[in-house]
Amino acid sequence: MTKEDGGRRGRAGLDRRSLLGGAAGVGGTLLAAAGGARAEEAAIPAELPEWSRYLGPGVDDEPYGKPSKYEAHVIRRNVEWLTASTESSVNFTPLPWLNGIITPNGVFFERHHGGRAEIDPTKHRLLIHGLVEKPLVYTMEDIKRLPCEDRIWFLECAANGGMEWRGAQLNGCQYVRGMIGCAQWTGVRLKTLLERSGLKPNAKWVLAEGADASALTRSFPIEKALDDAFVAYAQNGEALRPGQGYPLRLILPGWEANMSVKWLRRIEVGDAPWYTRWETSKYTDLLPSGKAYKFTWVQEANSVITWPAPEHKVDGPGQYMIRGLAWSGRGRIVRVDLTFDGGKNWVTAPLQEPILPKALTRFYYPWRWDGSSVIIASRAIDETGYVQPTITQLRNARGRNSIYHNNAIITWLVNSSGEVENVQVA
Amino acid sequence: MTKEDGGRRGRAGLDRRSLLGGAAGVGGTLLAAAGGARAEEAAIPAELPEWSRYLGPGVDDEPYGKPSKYEAHVIRRNVEWLTASTESSVNFTPLPWLNGIITPNGVFFERHHGGRAEIDPTKHRLLIHGLVEKPLVYTMEDIKRLPCEDRIWFLECAANGGMEWRGAQLNGCQYVRGMIGCAQWTGVRLKTLLERSGLKPNAKWVLAEGADASALTRSFPIEKALDDAFVAYAQNGEALRPGQGYPLRLILPGWEANMSVKWLRRIEVGDAPWYTRWETSKYTDLLPSGKAYKFTWVQEANSVITWPAPEHKVDGPGQYMIRGLAWSGRGRIVRVDLTFDGGKNWVTAPLQEPILPKALTRFYYPWRWDGSSVIIASRAIDETGYVQPTITQLRNARGRNSIYHNNAIITWLVNSSGEVENVQVA
Repeated sequence: MTKEDGGRRGRAGLDRRSLLGGAAGVGGTLLAAAGGARAEEAAIPAELPEWSRYLGPGVDDEPYGKPSKYEAHVIRRNVEWLTASTESSVNFTPLPWLNGIITPNGVFFERHHGGRAEIDPTKHRLLIHGLVEKPLVYTMEDIKRLPCEDRIWFLECAANGGMEWRGAQLNGCQYVRGMIGCAQWTGVRLKTLLERSGLKPNAKWVLAEGADASALTRSFPIEKALDDAFVAYAQNGEALRPGQGYPLRLILPGWEANMSVKWLRRIEVGDAPWYTRWETSKYTDLLPSGKAYKFTWVQEANSVITWPAPEHKVDGPGQYMIRGLAWSGRGRIVRVDLTFDGGKNWVTAPLQEPILPKALTRFYYPWRWDGSSVIIASRAIDETGYVQPTITQLRNARGRNSIYHNNAIITWLVNSSGEVENVQVA
Repeated sequence: MTKEDGGRRGRAGLDRRSLLGGAAGVGGTLLAAAGGARAEEAAIPAELPEWSRYLGPGVDDEPYGKPSKYEAHVIRRNVEWLTASTESSVNFTPLPWLNGIITPNGVFFERHHGGRAEIDPTKHRLLIHGLVEKPLVYTMEDIKRLPCEDRIWFLECAANGGMEWRGAQLNGCQYVRGMIGCAQWTGVRLKTLLERSGLKPNAKWVLAEGADASALTRSFPIEKALDDAFVAYAQNGEALRPGQGYPLRLILPGWEANMSVKWLRRIEVGDAPWYTRWETSKYTDLLPSGKAYKFTWVQEANSVITWPAPEHKVDGPGQYMIRGLAWSGRGRIVRVDLTFDGGKNWVTAPLQEPILPKALTRFYYPWRWDGSSVIIASRAIDETGYVQPTITQLRNARGRNSIYHNNAIITWLVNSSGEVENVQVA
């Protein structure tokens, strides 16, 4: 076999430090000559970096790993003035620092109504009852014995962007659209559970109840229950996190996430909606007439530019990558348009694979900034042909009194200093 | 608007506790009568569970979330006797407790040769030099300005399953195949970086070097560099974890993960391989003749049943879901077969979407266990037509002296007590 120092000899007699020193010399000259583009401006360090000189921690010190200490800013944040208590409140996914379509479980937004329930899975039960032939109670082990599937779906709070209906303009992408996340879920179709119990002929509606202190309950039609409704026990490979309903949550794909009841303990089948507080006094869209839409479940097509965003400063003129997300509760995203002049002209951004129904879709777009003040925005179009509206269009239809279902185009002003502001135009 | 107690009235006058008490009575009778299948055997709790009675923690206590305390067993584990130190060692992904195809970053296996480097990203540099027209040095900010993509790929250590070549049979799915993970990566094609520097006509090979204390270096052909070779800065949405090369790693999709150099600091272009220690004394396949294959980079088709597995006990006769993973470094998995009689008969398992090239593919399969002793196994077939071999076929070709590239079919014995053992048959 080759000697241990084979690799060293392969480097034409140069040792590690002299090689790098030499490269610094060569590079320094060439790079200075090249000028302009960013890579050339950096200086090659003549010394090895400190972390190359010492052994790092071994493989036994982080049985469950964590991010680098240099990423401590990539966290969920809440807004103190938004709610009376932190137990009935929300924290926001740090979208401006994320890439891809998978939201890491550690920063997936949370919306609780009675705090984050902490459940012993061996004691958790799911009851299926009401207009069924055979009420059944399941342990978690029972549920894991049933036919299961993986699905990648987003979950978005109905109130995502809700603070902007009346004109408040939170200066942060995290706050403006951070009540969303996307994960690969593993679990059982609700249809499988209902079929095991047997639906009675008058079964028309379903109620889901959570085991948290708020006993959150929502009604939904049997058609959704027998379509893609899902009971999940895993998220991005591992068990659900407590903040996402551990050990079991409902998922109603594409619908407002409040209906994807966490800590799921009870499914009741009935012949009419229950009109719980979470579908009457809350989670309804108040119109200018004082009336409210009865049910508005679907999260319509939406998008946001996550870089640049108010959390970032654009570091001088030059080449950048626009980063953004689009999604629709009605299916696949088919197109995302971008504007760099406040909506006068639009270009189409390529979409990253995979493009999945009711999942986040990622777009990246190269952008050369000339240093002048520009208003940038994205708009999503889904497979139904629906085009993400402007805030003016939404207000014309629904006034300013709503909290929910604000899927208006978001406009960022990049000013000439490179700072990014949330502005509302059109 | 509807009163706050609307939901309560909707429940036909029943309060929460009496409703559940009633259900318990009804369910108890019906469930006892139904008998047999698992769900019926559980008793409905008459009392609300304790976590329904108190407010849980608010939304500000876990800016970066963590798993439930009841999931403390789902961790990376290392094997103390396997290596002389923990700095040059490996920990294993806890496959038997995972679902889907996304490996959470917290439990993604690690293999370090000089410990886990902990790098300040503002001081990190990537040098591109050698047979290029223009050597360049990049900061992390420079790299994030370049055209980027998302890709879902597995990374598997060449030594995955390596302890079994000579007959050792580790009694754990985590140890037998846990040197693998799969993630959505975000970054830049290596081709983009090389084109910016300009390849010289005699550019035939590429060397990648890590900034860790081992300065791990590997050679690979220019064809791979210009095909799907990738420089990643994000994993499952967030920045790479330190154990995965933060802030920057190479990825050579489908190839042994040792070549996907972590903490990437240098790319050198040359006209011949460097024959570093990690491609000569290590990471080569020793044959019975005493010679070794020169380069064996591709991770061939492989699979493993993750449930049942030695870490789990099958809890009596009844219905279960077989869970497993398949993958191939050559492209997509097209079929996974399962046997329940030690390889005499095989059935095909449905595959879960998405089925992506060089990514983990998940299969679930319903299985009724009659309580007798059975030997179960999976075998993967990829889009090239390659069929995962038996350990006998591998040993006939390559003897027993290798450490690397053991993709043999794994056979679990489920004995009549429900315990699962790792056995080698055929």
